[in-house]
Amino acid sequence: MAPPEEIVGEAVEEFAAEKSDAGVGVPISNILIIIAMQTEALPLVTKFRLSEDTTESPFPKGVPWIRYHGIYKNLEINLVWPGKDAVFGVDSVGTISASLVTYASIQALKPDLIINAGTAGGFKAKGACIGDVYFVSDVSFHDRRIPIPVFDLYGIGTRQTFSTPNLVKELNLKFGKLSTGDSLDMSPQDEASILANGATIKDMEGAAVAYVADLFSVPVIFVKAVTDIVDGEKPTAEEFLQNLVAVTAALDQAVSQVIDFINGKCLSDL
Amino acid sequence: MAPPEEIVGEAVEEFAAEKSDAGVGVPISNILIIIAMQTEALPLVTKFRLSEDTTESPFPKGVPWIRYHGIYKNLEINLVWPGKDAVFGVDSVGTISASLVTYASIQALKPDLIINAGTAGGFKAKGACIGDVYFVSDVSFHDRRIPIPVFDLYGIGTRQTFSTPNLVKELNLKFGKLSTGDSLDMSPQDEASILANGATIKDMEGAAVAYVADLFSVPVIFVKAVTDIVDGEKPTAEEFLQNLVAVTAALDQAVSQVIDFINGKCLSDL
Repeated sequence: MAPPEEIVGEAVEEFAAEKSDAGVGVPISNILIIIAMQTEALPLVTKFRLSEDTTESPFPKGVPWIRYHGIYKNLEINLVWPGKDAVFGVDSVGTISASLVTYASIQALKPDLIINAGTAGGFKAKGACIGDVYFVSDVSFHDRRIPIPVFDLYGIGTRQTFSTPNLVKELNLKFGKLSTGDSLDMSPQDEASILANGATIKDMEGAAVAYVADLFSVPVIFVKAVTDIVDGEKPTAEEFLQNLVAVTAALDQAVSQVIDFINGKCLSDL
Repeated sequence: MAPPEEIVGEAVEEFAAEKSDAGVGVPISNILIIIAMQTEALPLVTKFRLSEDTTESPFPKGVPWIRYHGIYKNLEINLVWPGKDAVFGVDSVGTISASLVTYASIQALKPDLIINAGTAGGFKAKGACIGDVYFVSDVSFHDRRIPIPVFDLYGIGTRQTFSTPNLVKELNLKFGKLSTGDSLDMSPQDEASILANGATIKDMEGAAVAYVADLFSVPVIFVKAVTDIVDGEKPTAEEFLQNLVAVTAALDQAVSQVIDFINGKCLSDL
């Protein structure tokens, strides 16, 4: 068996090569936006005048997932939100719901490009401030510790995102690595893993969306806005709730700019 | 909003009531066995003379998931293993793959009953020993800490499993609570959450399988064999690898006994 570092290096290069060949000369027509929280999703539904499925859902009976869709300029936009949990009544956040909606949406909607937008915690030691909006260069998990050779790397699951140098330059957003885990707070083990992943921001869905999209070679870009400083003084949950609405405005503005930039372009132009 | 304890209590009761009404008078005909590791799956494939899909998979192109199927006595058996990760080449363990295969298998195969079988870590303080095989009374997550009211309970996601008093009595296996997380090791925060969940055993898939099955009201039972003592002296990974093959024999024997017991019975007879 090849040393783990080589396996990963090769895999990441192959992945990047495959993605950069995609969609040359064909304008992007079908965008899938995946957003975990209703508060984050609704302003974009309004902005792009999307309609909720009321009679015909692309998803099976039983799931709480909600699709909004519509045409904006030359783009068909599907925005999928995992909905409220049937038992607890809260947004279905986290990697399991994110994986499932990504899988089911790719199968049903065949998107050219996925945008995973949402809020995130940021590290001030890495330059993150409340309200900053980030593009993401690569994603990893920080709460899948499997200390067996190669399984450890599978657990961390680092993946490069789809490369969009022109978009990054045009929008002048910050750019950093994202680490994903299923907790809003951060244990000392999480923190060590996030630092090892070199991440500037942490969320609860990104690497799961990337994992599933990668199975089907669908390019994904991430737009993440900072609601709370993870290495700061304030408790994360309090800071998150305090800033959620205001930061969502910045997030949705950035997503709108991304959509406007994408309109009429090919994947290879991004 | 009702206090969280009441919400959970009601939800658990409703769930149990719904499940215990299912399938009265109709013999079980279609069983789905979900197993995360190839080492755990292959002896059962041999025992039940299941065939691997070679030409026609029920799953879309791109996923590594493998279905084995066949007829055993009066049962159609589908055994699904999430396969080897395309990038890292190891078994696709953990909650994301488990959720996805459960979802896709329910959609494609419409099982009457799911059996999630696998290995687990056990707590000697709760009476677990290497090689013990457990039935599971309820499942929770221990690595989804979201310290916001109600979101905290969503994260823990406690669910009762399908009640099978006759099966439990007949097979005389141990019976306990299961806690699920994406790490093989156990951080102090994980340990505190597992203790709060009242769990005797910990695994990396169970609560995810239960979550997805619950969306579609498909009953699930869990058969978990102890490969390592989590509150013992030895490092988990070492003990897990040392015992995997031997404990898998005990696991597969128990699953065979479960299948033999189920054959010809209705859900309400279990």
